[in-house]
Amino acid sequence: MARPAGLSGFPEWLPDGRLVELEVLDTVRRVFELHGFTPLETRSVEPVDVLLRKGEIDKEVYAVRRLHSEPGDEDALALHFDLTVPFARFVVENASRLDFPLRRYQVQKVWRGERPQEGRFREFTQADIDIVDVDRLATHHDAEMALVMAEVFASLPFLPPATIHVNNRKVLEGFYRGLGVDDVPAVLRAIDKLDKIGPAKVRTLLVESGLSEDVADRVLALAQIRGTDGSVADEVRALGVSDPLLDEGLAELVAVVEAAQRVRPGAIEADLHIARGLDYYTGTVYETTLEGFESFGSICSGGRYDALASDGRTTYPGVGISLGVTRLVSLLLGRDLARATRKVPSAVLVAVVDEESRPASDAVAHALRSRGIPCEVAPRAERFGKQIKHADRRGIPYVWFPDAEGDTVKDIRSGEQVGADATTWTPPDTDLRPRVVAVTDGEAESEEGAS
Amino acid sequence: MARPAGLSGFPEWLPDGRLVELEVLDTVRRVFELHGFTPLETRSVEPVDVLLRKGEIDKEVYAVRRLHSEPGDEDALALHFDLTVPFARFVVENASRLDFPLRRYQVQKVWRGERPQEGRFREFTQADIDIVDVDRLATHHDAEMALVMAEVFASLPFLPPATIHVNNRKVLEGFYRGLGVDDVPAVLRAIDKLDKIGPAKVRTLLVESGLSEDVADRVLALAQIRGTDGSVADEVRALGVSDPLLDEGLAELVAVVEAAQRVRPGAIEADLHIARGLDYYTGTVYETTLEGFESFGSICSGGRYDALASDGRTTYPGVGISLGVTRLVSLLLGRDLARATRKVPSAVLVAVVDEESRPASDAVAHALRSRGIPCEVAPRAERFGKQIKHADRRGIPYVWFPDAEGDTVKDIRSGEQVGADATTWTPPDTDLRPRVVAVTDGEAESEEGAS
Repeated sequence: MARPAGLSGFPEWLPDGRLVELEVLDTVRRVFELHGFTPLETRSVEPVDVLLRKGEIDKEVYAVRRLHSEPGDEDALALHFDLTVPFARFVVENASRLDFPLRRYQVQKVWRGERPQEGRFREFTQADIDIVDVDRLATHHDAEMALVMAEVFASLPFLPPATIHVNNRKVLEGFYRGLGVDDVPAVLRAIDKLDKIGPAKVRTLLVESGLSEDVADRVLALAQIRGTDGSVADEVRALGVSDPLLDEGLAELVAVVEAAQRVRPGAIEADLHIARGLDYYTGTVYETTLEGFESFGSICSGGRYDALASDGRTTYPGVGISLGVTRLVSLLLGRDLARATRKVPSAVLVAVVDEESRPASDAVAHALRSRGIPCEVAPRAERFGKQIKHADRRGIPYVWFPDAEGDTVKDIRSGEQVGADATTWTPPDTDLRPRVVAVTDGEAESEEGAS
Repeated sequence: MARPAGLSGFPEWLPDGRLVELEVLDTVRRVFELHGFTPLETRSVEPVDVLLRKGEIDKEVYAVRRLHSEPGDEDALALHFDLTVPFARFVVENASRLDFPLRRYQVQKVWRGERPQEGRFREFTQADIDIVDVDRLATHHDAEMALVMAEVFASLPFLPPATIHVNNRKVLEGFYRGLGVDDVPAVLRAIDKLDKIGPAKVRTLLVESGLSEDVADRVLALAQIRGTDGSVADEVRALGVSDPLLDEGLAELVAVVEAAQRVRPGAIEADLHIARGLDYYTGTVYETTLEGFESFGSICSGGRYDALASDGRTTYPGVGISLGVTRLVSLLLGRDLARATRKVPSAVLVAVVDEESRPASDAVAHALRSRGIPCEVAPRAERFGKQIKHADRRGIPYVWFPDAEGDTVKDIRSGEQVGADATTWTPPDTDLRPRVVAVTDGEAESEEGAS
């Protein structure tokens, strides 16, 4: 089975694992393009100061330098730690050549020098969508981003059920302000630990940070509110805090969950304990959990950033959401939830009778490929039993036997062998390419037993 | 038009340029998979000593280090400069979990700290295929690699005609050895400059390096031999040098070009001045030029490496060829040879009558997408003229007008507007997705005039 090897935090999948990853990436791209997001890539490096000005803590950044460069040789560069900060830089740099609002998707590797652990890597792939506009970005896009990702999840049948949790920074900040909290970041940091250490310990942290017991209780009560409609706002107001920013945030939050609920009931819910670590979010924030794997962390996160992209004169507000492809795939492979039906693209292995007749086998392969059927020619003219074993080991379902008297093709699963013409024969659709399927417990056991 | 910006050597394309690049990447993947190559990715970093032991000169390597790491904190890492050395490392590390011969493709970014110039970048994407086996790898794969890439080129109609030039290291080394040359690398370096400085200056270099005038002349004569069949070997032998390694190399070279010639006449030729800089090649080597852009350098190179992957006990000989995707795309965009028919995936913009009826427009989009038609909903309920302009700027061909009395859809190129049902209407196949087309001189001018 596919598994990470070698350098801790830098995962590598075996070919069958990469096929699972590609199925996720292909699905992501298909859904993003159906929604009109246009593809973009940015370079992997940014000037260090661009990365440190915004976002993550600095020690997580990987600096990049030519091995034999002299000090001062060139600008200090670092690998990007997400795709949002580089995208914001790209938008400002190319604003005159872009059409706004700009809908773009971006699927790339990012790097963070964090301590590796399950689901947390130093090199990983993210799949992002963002919409940015000039000066003002309509709020209906906040629901749209979550709905596009919900469609991605619904298109991956081997995935455990996903819930996108939505909150709004204005709700948290308005509520805390209304309570007279001075150190809002300290409260956010404590609330961020709710899943890990539980409400009792968070309450202790809050009181230690200077909050009164009553205020700490109300902060905790806010964090425990969930819902998919306007009742969420009612529950918040029942806590007896009022603030204009809180009202603004609640209106936005309710609009997002109600719009989402109309289109895809149950996929998206308001969850008032979501805070997000990145400091560039200004409104809606998202996190996503998979049923049964909540402790694995969020597999899809993001939010609205009204002030991230700016050249001083013009601001380009944006909203975005990012799928953690590597984290998701590491879960699918590590827990054996999904598996490719074979290890190679080939649907057919064309047998070789002897090395002199290899061109005849090549011609069969050429005819099959010209009609879109992936295949390969046996590397050695061994006895047919060995050639069939070559196909079997890779999961290639068909072996083709060229024969001057008339070719035949054998389904090596059933043993059925029939006459066939390379210019017309076609495998069933389900055999044309490797498919990625959910692994049931029974299957997992029996296949492991066979390997 | 798409153009690189920002950091020299780190190209970024605008969305319409990225669409051209994706067309190249999709074609590459489709052809590779038709030939049964299975997908693989390796991590972007390797221990520095793995990279310096093999391949390129060390000063081109980018070292990677956590910004706030202490000296000695962790292994010295660097970004890979190609995909062959990491693949060889991966094969050795995972040999027990792989099936040999292993056919894999790998499309990833690589980094080299070289001085940027036209077609030469510090960060670029390569698309590689390789076949590795245990102990011995059949020679018919050497022709196969070139033929797969020739099929890629034939599948990119906007590409200038490509020729894959093939040589064999054994021919060069055997010939030089037969001539009594001591410093083979010095001769190879001089021959490598033929395209840049011409035969007269190379001859001077050769004589300066200690060769007699006669030997220099024969070295130059060898480098000028071209052909697509056994006559190449005859021409080499006519130079009066004999050596067992030379004979072995000539037999391999003739086998490659003759096998290739049978399948795809004219796409592949023997060219005895090809040497390749990387020191891990041991037999067949490839380089590729585009007609009319020879000075742009090779866009597709590789060769056979019989000793690169080894754990000391077992050796995994391989042959591979690598398409320089970024170099190719920079040529297509920089010389305006290819262009996307629009800037976004959307075939349809669904207009919005007013913000209250946005859900009705969303429902139209949902119906279209469920049948695979990419579309987007107008971001603002502006007057229809502005919404049509939104589509026009992006090249979206159709605007959909929801209407309780009956929806209509307008082809904004012809102005034709017809009644339509979102559950059945389908655009022509040619409008479904952005296509990448060759730019003729006339088109290039008229479109530039219009922008």
